[in-house]
Order: sequence, then structure tokens, then C-alpha cells
Amino acid sequence: MVKHALTVTRAEDFAAWYQSVIQQADLAEESGVRGCMIIRPWGYGIWERMQRLLDERIKAAGHENCYFPLFIPLSYFEKEAEHVNGFAKEMAVVTHHRLIADGKGGLVPDPDAKLEEPLVVRPTSETVIGTAFSRWVRSWRDLPILVNQWANVVRWEMRTRMFLRTTEFLWQEGHTAHATADEAREETRNMLEVYRRFAQDVAAMPVVAGEKPENERFPGAVETWSIEAMMQDGKALQAGTSHFLGTNFARVQNISFQNAHGEVELANTTSWGMSTRMLGGMIMTHGDDDGLRVPPMLAPWQVVIVPVLRGTPGDDAVLAYCADLHGKIAEGYAFGERIRVLLDRKHAKAAAKRWGWVKKGVPLILEIGGRELDNGTVSFIRRDRPFKGGGEFDTAITSAPDFVNEAPRLLEVLQHNLFAEAQRRMQADIVRDVVDMAGIEAFFAEDGRRPGWLEVPWSRPTGEALGKVVARLKALKLTIRNVPLGASPAEGKCVFTGDPAVESVLLARAY
Amino acid sequence: MVKHALTVTRAEDFAAWYQSVIQQADLAEESGVRGCMIIRPWGYGIWERMQRLLDERIKAAGHENCYFPLFIPLSYFEKEAEHVNGFAKEMAVVTHHRLIADGKGGLVPDPDAKLEEPLVVRPTSETVIGTAFSRWVRSWRDLPILVNQWANVVRWEMRTRMFLRTTEFLWQEGHTAHATADEAREETRNMLEVYRRFAQDVAAMPVVAGEKPENERFPGAVETWSIEAMMQDGKALQAGTSHFLGTNFARVQNISFQNAHGEVELANTTSWGMSTRMLGGMIMTHGDDDGLRVPPMLAPWQVVIVPVLRGTPGDDAVLAYCADLHGKIAEGYAFGERIRVLLDRKHAKAAAKRWGWVKKGVPLILEIGGRELDNGTVSFIRRDRPFKGGGEFDTAITSAPDFVNEAPRLLEVLQHNLFAEAQRRMQADIVRDVVDMAGIEAFFAEDGRRPGWLEVPWSRPTGEALGKVVARLKALKLTIRNVPLGASPAEGKCVFTGDPAVESVLLARAY
Repeated sequence: MVKHALTVTRAEDFAAWYQSVIQQADLAEESGVRGCMIIRPWGYGIWERMQRLLDERIKAAGHENCYFPLFIPLSYFEKEAEHVNGFAKEMAVVTHHRLIADGKGGLVPDPDAKLEEPLVVRPTSETVIGTAFSRWVRSWRDLPILVNQWANVVRWEMRTRMFLRTTEFLWQEGHTAHATADEAREETRNMLEVYRRFAQDVAAMPVVAGEKPENERFPGAVETWSIEAMMQDGKALQAGTSHFLGTNFARVQNISFQNAHGEVELANTTSWGMSTRMLGGMIMTHGDDDGLRVPPMLAPWQVVIVPVLRGTPGDDAVLAYCADLHGKIAEGYAFGERIRVLLDRKHAKAAAKRWGWVKKGVPLILEIGGRELDNGTVSFIRRDRPFKGGGEFDTAITSAPDFVNEAPRLLEVLQHNLFAEAQRRMQADIVRDVVDMAGIEAFFAEDGRRPGWLEVPWSRPTGEALGKVVARLKALKLTIRNVPLGASPAEGKCVFTGDPAVESVLLARAY
Repeated sequence: MVKHALTVTRAEDFAAWYQSVIQQADLAEESGVRGCMIIRPWGYGIWERMQRLLDERIKAAGHENCYFPLFIPLSYFEKEAEHVNGFAKEMAVVTHHRLIADGKGGLVPDPDAKLEEPLVVRPTSETVIGTAFSRWVRSWRDLPILVNQWANVVRWEMRTRMFLRTTEFLWQEGHTAHATADEAREETRNMLEVYRRFAQDVAAMPVVAGEKPENERFPGAVETWSIEAMMQDGKALQAGTSHFLGTNFARVQNISFQNAHGEVELANTTSWGMSTRMLGGMIMTHGDDDGLRVPPMLAPWQVVIVPVLRGTPGDDAVLAYCADLHGKIAEGYAFGERIRVLLDRKHAKAAAKRWGWVKKGVPLILEIGGRELDNGTVSFIRRDRPFKGGGEFDTAITSAPDFVNEAPRLLEVLQHNLFAEAQRRMQADIVRDVVDMAGIEAFFAEDGRRPGWLEVPWSRPTGEALGKVVARLKALKLTIRNVPLGASPAEGKCVFTGDPAVESVLLARAY
């Protein structure tokens, strides 16, 4: 039996394995504040990489970063009825601006410092940003407005899970205003494509992009689009969303402009977001029974050198050899950036360090001792290769100059391999030959098997008819994830209504 | 009379001029939410540059970024008495987690969703981070812990002013724990030096670094150090602080460790922060009567090319010439980074664009029309040069290849010139020959003159004696800014007590 770095495997208990990776890779921990987590340096370092690479793409698509207030007056929410209904149940409300001693050694909100109008801690910023847009937009010449912000938001979730569903989370939210619905629709789709490519090209996470059904729309949106990723337990994770808001928000916020003919029109707006949830997706896409595996583009350290020291005078020469190697690797470029390489000088045993970096998912882990020094070689572990068992890794050995030359290509291969592995799994586990409810029930009933997703034909029912479909799926713990873009044309009948099918939908259990 | 881009000058009304720069340079605006501002793209772009360059320095000093919760349970604050007394009066308190319809078309906090323990929106994070440290630290081997976070914080200020004092502001806060007081003191001073160098080398803002007197310490600190910058109206701006907290927080939070001899000791902690206040400092240090002047290291665009078009077929050649120039300038490096250059293709008149960039403070503004195309030249405005008046700038003309070659050096010269100008002003306006209270009163009584700062000898009174000094200064609207590091040894008598002087202090009016 192969001994692994984690005490619980994916097959044994996926949920426990997920928590174990978060803990063993030092990604995050509970904070003691309900539903709020502490993101630890390794987790935050990965988030900083995501921020930097996604930010570049958002800016390249023409958007500028701004910052809007954390607090939103209650009255802003009262305007868009659907929007407030969607969020009112889970908002943190600030009612006081001062604390006072309670006479028993504790503190209480000061009754004399009650706010006239309570403030909501932003769950999302359409209301406050739209209000700014209404001031900024006068003429068609002011359009489009393309802004983005990196911020924390708060949604009072009853059941929380680290990274996937936390009371406070970090994200970016883009908000735009356009002169025409067509242009706003195009923006919505362009940003969906930015997310799709970011997920696949940067996070090595294959996704299916598509439109959400009516019942899964963002509160107040006309269209909601998502990218959905398949986790290793077969569940779906919504990894990014892009919303076409039409004139719904513009109407209540008065975002209007004079067009080229002098007529006053309402602007069409969009919003789109991606969050720290991506970290949870990365864990469940790439993690294995030895911990996390970070795609090289996102790894805070892509290469770590662990010196194997013996407490003898020979250690100095080993350390000098490591330092030389470190300098040479650091001069290389991978993915257009300098390679991020660490020489781990901490006072700890080499084996403990190696296991630490394996669990953190560093792509290339070098172990350098007297033998490597004598032979001018490098021994290294590739984190995309399976663990050999018996406490041993599948270690490769190469000459030092070869390693330095090959490191950029190796990192690119690793990035590719992680994506290909996840892509193969997702493609194998999207099943398309189920044609009725009985088939759906049978597919998801099989216990002990990773069920995957179903792509089934449907007639796009709306309103009450859709409500019935949703209820039947809910009984099976299933949701409609989206209508995939570029799916093959639907044939035959809708699996739910028996009417002629017009398109395909993805069914899955989801996070 | 010289006509300037702003309708109000520094000499006429410094406070109105400050607001005018913020508005005319599109830095920020009121949000409609009490005391909270919207940071607009140009302001946020400068903040992003500050973040990136300060973050590099914080990391180079060995710190790792993390993220801690926005919300802090009330009970965390009850432990450190001084700390809570310092902040309780200005904290936003979350008491409910749901809204409900009020029956009149509005919303109210749901009485059934009242939190058992109210949550404070962090005014600073010593309490929540210290609680984490108490879990992380077991042995001397776990020390030091060196973390930093970039976050928003909230302090309920009664009177707010954009960037300088806002209810919500953005900052970084570093928090560290050490095995010994000496090491923590050294950290406190090292980070003060990081701030001093960042202010001077990056923001081109000369500062005086020193220790705050007892009455100005951070609540709960043993020592507080600051950097103080002189604004153009002679007032002081505290631009960064670094606190040695001793074992004050460790004691109440139980941050203890086993030392090398097996004994349990309390850790010594530090904290230090710099905020969006720096943007206010930059405006009041470098702004002139034509708007902002951004130091090139912080400028989102260091060079802007404004094409001068005539609506004729010749425009294509001008635009091609501009695009070629843009490409060549963008290949250059200044301060070790690629030059950030924009070709402004917006549909607006060249003069309007030029004035816009002048007010935003772009270091080098190029105007390129038919004449420049024909002669193969570049006409440009250097934002460090005074405005000539009569609607004309002091425009330099050089050949295009020379400009491309010289741009990196020009940007470095501009950075230097802005610093030198501010440095000359500060040095001229720190007066050291006042030896008694009458002299202090006379110095700050002179109306219509920029008063500057006084450096006076004092005997370092404490407790009640210090309280009396502070009260006398307060009557003159003065505060003790700090005890400057590296000041010449104090001679003679304390200006306040008449006792022998032991050191010098800086007196100033302050923001």
C-alpha cells in the first residue's frame, strides 16, 4: 500500500481531504470569527498571482481600476426589487458608530451613536457604482464606462466552507455602462471569455462556459453567464460569472445619456466577478493525496531548492553549490516572467522541508546534497508525476547546466500536464446519451462512483414550467449549471417536458 | 497676471485648492456615503503604483502577505484597555445579519437576525492578528513571525477630508512577533526606515523620522515612531507610523513561546502602517496652481502623447508618427521598469487633452502635429517646469530620436527635481533658533506667512508635566510631531519646563 503525505485520501472522504489540503498546505485557517477565514501566506501568495494575472487581462480589455465604498446606505438597495430580494437575507448591517462600557467590564454599542440610516456592508456593488455612473454619464461621448475594483465583500452565509463559501471573501467586480444593449451584451460575453481563458490558460482548470437558466440568474440581471469547472468528485464549481443587466439598474439609478440625436436614453450595464473561490477550485481540480499541486503560472515559488546538510564542514560547499544554482535558475524566464525560485535555508531537516513543499504543491522541488555536489547534478521531484510510494518520490537526476537550461520548458510542460489531466477527466465525465428522467435518476443514483455531469436536450421552459423542472432536479440534489456555448445542436425531445429540444443544458451536483 | 489651470491658487485658499486638485485631476470624489470616498481611476492608479513599490520593499524586508477578517468580535477589544479606549469612540458596529421589509416600502434590520455578539469593522487589526499569533507561536523556532496585509479599515471620523481623514481608508498593516524586545525594537526602526526611504525615494516627499512623544503613541504601544512630511502650507502630515508594542498585546492575547532553555516567555510584537493618506500628502507636497504633479515613479502614465489633428487626410501621417514614437518610448526603461507611455486617441481637442494631462500631473506631455512630423521632432511639456503664463507652457523641442534616448534620464531628473524642490522648502522652513514660549507664540502668530516647523530643545517631561505642555501647545493649535532621529544634540534649557534639555522636538500645526 502506498503511503501518502495526507492522512485522508480523496477516495476515502473528499470533503475531509479538501480540509486537510487547506491545513497541510498552509493555505488558510478558521479565524474564530464566524464564517471568516484567515488566508495564510501560501494561500495569499497564490491569490496575489491570480490577482496580478487576471488584473493584466482586465486592463488589457480596456478597464480601469477604481475603489468604491465598503458601506452602502439601505436606501440604495430599496430601488431594485429583485436585487434586494436576492441579497437582503444575507447582509451584514452596521447600526452604530461607537462602543461604550456596559458597566460590567464589557462593551456594547452606544445607544446614543445609532445611525440614522443603517449601512449595509457591500455584498456586491451594483447599487453604489450605478449611483456613481448616474453622475458620470451625461452624453453618449461619456460611454462606455469600463471600471473594475478589487475588494472584500460580505454575504452572511449560514453554512460556510473555506474558500468556497465564506461570510467575507475577496474578489474583483467589473462594472460597465454602454450606449446600446448589443454593446453591453458583447462586453458580457467578452469578459466571460476572459474568465474562460484565465481559468484554462492560467489556473489550468478546464471549464464549460455558457448561459445560466432563468432561475439561476443574478438578482436583477437579464442574462447571467458562467464558467463551470468539474471538481475531482464530479461536482461542478461556478468559477466566474458575467451578467448582462440590460436597463434594469440604469432605470432605477437613472443612468441616462443624450444620444447623438439629442434624445435621452437609458444606458445598458454589465457586471462580472471572480473571487477567492478560485482557490477552492484549484485545490479540488489539481490536488492529490500528497497535497496541493499548484500550476506553475500561479505558484508563488515555482522551484524550491532544499539543501541536504549533514552538520559537517562539507555543508558550506553544498550551500555554495545551491546558491550558485539558485542564481542561475533565477535568471531564466518562464511564461514571460523571471522564474520564482527559493533556496530554503530554514533550520529543519531536509525530509521535513521536502514534504512541506510537496504538500504545498511547488512544481519543482530540488534536493541537493554531497552527491549532487560531487557529480555536478540536480535531483528533483516533479509535482505532476505520481508519487512512487514507500516514502520515495519519482526523483529525476540531471546535470546542473541541463537543469538550468531546461527549467523554463519543464515548468511549461508541468502547466500543460496539469491542464491535460483535468481536461481528460472532465471530457470523460460529461455524459451525453441520457434522454429521460429515469436515465438522469439512474446516472446520479450510482453510489460510490464519481457521477460527473450530464448534458441533456431541453426545450428551455420558463416561468412555472421551469419551476417544476427545478423542483424535480432539486429532489435529486441537482442543478442546471448552464447552457454550454458551442454544444452540439440539441436533437430529439426535452428530457423534462417532452417538447422538441432547442438546446442542451448541463446537469450536475454543485458546490 | 499668469492664468493657471485651476481657478483657485495655493496662496488664495490652500484648503479649497486641495479639493480643486482632487476634482480637476480626477483623483477622487464624494460617494454619497458619509465620510467614504470613491477613488477614481487616476487616483487609484497612483495608489496601485504605491502598493506595488511599497509591497516589494516590505517583502524584501522578509515579510509575507496574508489576509485577516474584516470583522472583529467585540470581546477581542475588551482585553487591551488602552487600545479599546483609543478606538471605541470611532468604530462601526455590525449588529444584524439580515434586512426585512418595513411594510412601508423600505427596509429595516431584521430584529430576529440580531447577532449574539456584535462585530466591529476593523479599525486596525492588532487584536485579530494577535489572536492568530497566539495559535501560531509555540517555540522560539516559530519566531519571528513577519506578516503584512493590504486591507480597508474603518474609523468613524466626525470631520472627514478626502484622502487625509476618511471613514473608510485603504492601507497596509504589518504585524510581527519576536523572541526579544531588542529584536522587536529593531524591526520597528527598520520599518520606519523602509517608510522613510519609500517616501523620499519613491514619492519624492522629504520627511523627518522620529519618535512620537508619550501622548501621541498608538493606543497600547510602548513606542510609536513616525515620518512627518511638510505640506506646502507649512503644516505637518504624519505619513507613516511604526509601533513597538512590547509585551502589551502578547500578555492579553497570550502570545507566548518556549525559549531555548525550555522556559515560557511572552513575545514582543510590532505593527506599522501606511495608507491612502499618502495620496493627500503627495498632492500637498507636489501640486501647483496648474494641478497635480506626480513623481515619475508613481505616475500611472509617465509620458502621454497628444496628437494635434486637423481633420484632414494629413492626420493619418501624424497618427502614424505618434504610434511609432509610442512604440519606441515604450521600449525604454526608467527606474528599472518599462516606461509607461500612452498615446491619447480620445475624441477631444488637443488643447483640452493637454490641459487634462497637465492637471493630472503627467511628468512628460508631448504634443505632436504636422510641424513635428515634418521636422522629425517632439514638442513637450515638462511638468517640473513652471508654467509660463498667457496660456503657454514652457515647451521644449528636440529631435524624435534624441527624445527617445533621453526619456529615461529626463524622468529620473524630474523625479529628482520634485524631491529637491520639496526638500529645499522643508529645510528652509524648519527653524531652530527659538528658545522660549514667547518665541513659539510669535513664530506661529505671524499671519499670512507659511509658518513652517520649529525644532526646540526639551527635557522630555512625562505624565502630568507633559499634559501641561500639550495643553499649552493645543491653545496655539500646535502638536509635538516627533523627536527627530539624528537631530543635533539639544543644548540649553527646555523651552517648556526650563529644565536642562535632553533632546529636540518638532512643533507644528498638523493635518
